[in-house]
Amino acid sequence: MKVDGTPYRTIWVADDGVAVEIIDQTRLPHEFVTVRLDTAAEAACAIKDMLVRGAPLIGVTAAYGVALAMRQDPSDAGLGAAYETLIATRPTAVNLRWALDDMRALLAPLPPAERTAAAYARAAEICDQDVAICSAIGDHGLALIGDMWQAKGRNGRVDLLTHCNAGWLATVDWGTALAPVYKAHDAGIPIHVWVDETRPRNQGDGLTAWELGRHGVPHTVIVDNAGGHLMQHGQVDLCITGTDRTTATGDVCNKIGTYLKALAASDNNVPFYVALPGPTIDWTIRDGLAEVPIEERDPSEVTHVTGRADGGEIVSVAVTPDGTPAANYAFDVTPARLVTGLITERGVCPASAEGLADLYPEHR
Amino acid sequence: MKVDGTPYRTIWVADDGVAVEIIDQTRLPHEFVTVRLDTAAEAACAIKDMLVRGAPLIGVTAAYGVALAMRQDPSDAGLGAAYETLIATRPTAVNLRWALDDMRALLAPLPPAERTAAAYARAAEICDQDVAICSAIGDHGLALIGDMWQAKGRNGRVDLLTHCNAGWLATVDWGTALAPVYKAHDAGIPIHVWVDETRPRNQGDGLTAWELGRHGVPHTVIVDNAGGHLMQHGQVDLCITGTDRTTATGDVCNKIGTYLKALAASDNNVPFYVALPGPTIDWTIRDGLAEVPIEERDPSEVTHVTGRADGGEIVSVAVTPDGTPAANYAFDVTPARLVTGLITERGVCPASAEGLADLYPEHR
Repeated sequence: MKVDGTPYRTIWVADDGVAVEIIDQTRLPHEFVTVRLDTAAEAACAIKDMLVRGAPLIGVTAAYGVALAMRQDPSDAGLGAAYETLIATRPTAVNLRWALDDMRALLAPLPPAERTAAAYARAAEICDQDVAICSAIGDHGLALIGDMWQAKGRNGRVDLLTHCNAGWLATVDWGTALAPVYKAHDAGIPIHVWVDETRPRNQGDGLTAWELGRHGVPHTVIVDNAGGHLMQHGQVDLCITGTDRTTATGDVCNKIGTYLKALAASDNNVPFYVALPGPTIDWTIRDGLAEVPIEERDPSEVTHVTGRADGGEIVSVAVTPDGTPAANYAFDVTPARLVTGLITERGVCPASAEGLADLYPEHR
Repeated sequence: MKVDGTPYRTIWVADDGVAVEIIDQTRLPHEFVTVRLDTAAEAACAIKDMLVRGAPLIGVTAAYGVALAMRQDPSDAGLGAAYETLIATRPTAVNLRWALDDMRALLAPLPPAERTAAAYARAAEICDQDVAICSAIGDHGLALIGDMWQAKGRNGRVDLLTHCNAGWLATVDWGTALAPVYKAHDAGIPIHVWVDETRPRNQGDGLTAWELGRHGVPHTVIVDNAGGHLMQHGQVDLCITGTDRTTATGDVCNKIGTYLKALAASDNNVPFYVALPGPTIDWTIRDGLAEVPIEERDPSEVTHVTGRADGGEIVSVAVTPDGTPAANYAFDVTPARLVTGLITERGVCPASAEGLADLYPEHR
């Protein structure tokens, strides 16, 4: 999508044809900075330190990380080491494993001398596939939003609530949950987005608000506590969130707090959709609550908040008394029963084993 | 309760017998500062600017505000002006109106010369009544926690989740939701409190964590998004929150986000109790969602976070891009159907018109 009039993706090969460049998302929304990655270790750091985040973008970055590794050491040992380094960065994202397995399966049978070129080519394909997938998700979600706009008699606006950032910054372009928003906005449907702040890392505040603002989509930031109240008062027409991992039965593992919004949507008859690319479905898992490991991150993300001080400098401030214990669970699982539908690149289906198997019969 | 070994209330008459002193709660948890109030206007500012907050403490501060006003101008006009100034400070708190109506009803029939002394005496009575009420709430809640501890076979600990600050800082002493916690802790029951951060004003981070820490009660701060996940995984034995306003039918208007926790508790069979003093019940209202006006506060509370920077200075930082629109609803309404029981100074009752009328037959 566009930033100040210039089209961007979130990851691209540098002009030298070798290095990979990304947007440092830890510095958004206050600074727009791109970073050059020259090695697999740098790609791993970029994933682990969340310079890139969002399941699809993590997968693509890992794929390019393998390409960078092949340039340095295309041996079997080099491939194995790159795989291990990159897989260890984030435990929850299934795209990470998918992309790395895909790269390894492609490269392992090749002679080492051919691996580098093949790796760059395949990473570029994964990139383009992701853009195509997100665009298709956007088209299917646009149809839902269009129906809602018709149902409202084309009066007022369509109010959509989202949690965290599943926008173009979380993918290569378009986004997942926000792809339908961009498509609806571009199609002239008056859409307005309630943006959950999304503590503790404030991806709603920092990323969703930034990208919607740069594209000109009307939006309002609210604290994570507010969505239930808005739904009780008819101020939300539908919710769309992303997901880091979807089970074969339609349970959704997404940013901590998603479950609370799904409960509120259910209690107020607000449709709650989850947008996802096929590769985020984990076909090996049937019970999200019991089987998905939930990442625990540093408690300092809870006890401290980073933002822009009056003078423009980026400052981290403590919001708790010194020494306060804190716990930081990064994701939660929303049971399929609370999900109205899954918006995929192949269409919209019920959040159920049957619904998913109908769209992805190859996994039946 | 104690602060560094010294017993405090949240409001008291100064050594000169005239001024009223309070703890400036906007400077907690980073600084412990007391403030002297000499006029009704200062008392009104202290309420409006939230140097004092919490329904019971707001009521007591308003009562002392009337006493300060009488010292300056005990005429009918002075009494009327003080009432109008103080009632305008916070639209949602029913205790404010209760305390002001009580003071006016006492003072209006008296000759002006007798009003000042009567006002100070009555404000002190309201203070002491509040302490007695909170202590009784604590005793009834202690019984619930004790039962839970027995039901767990006295193994491990009792995990309680609370939202916002309904501790002694929100009252004159003991607190409402936290009174049972202090009583249980002091009785030797191993209790641990999950403290919701409570965006946007972070009263959990700033006040609940501070007062529990100073009293030595084990606790862990979490973001508001995390409670549902904890309940899904059996890590919460019960919830207790406070309330700013309770309807005659048991609907609860409390800090924004309370409704989301009540939904999660209901979905996971976790008991959800609300602790309240009788005077916070609004007997004139039967439908919380339709009838309780919800205060909207300054959007800057959402777009900015205040905390302590590394150097110790208190800094406000922007967490959203410049110019991002934000909405700031301060409260939400939790329907009675989601509330397991109301813990009052007279005992625990179902959250229903019948339950409340049984405890408060004078309002039947």
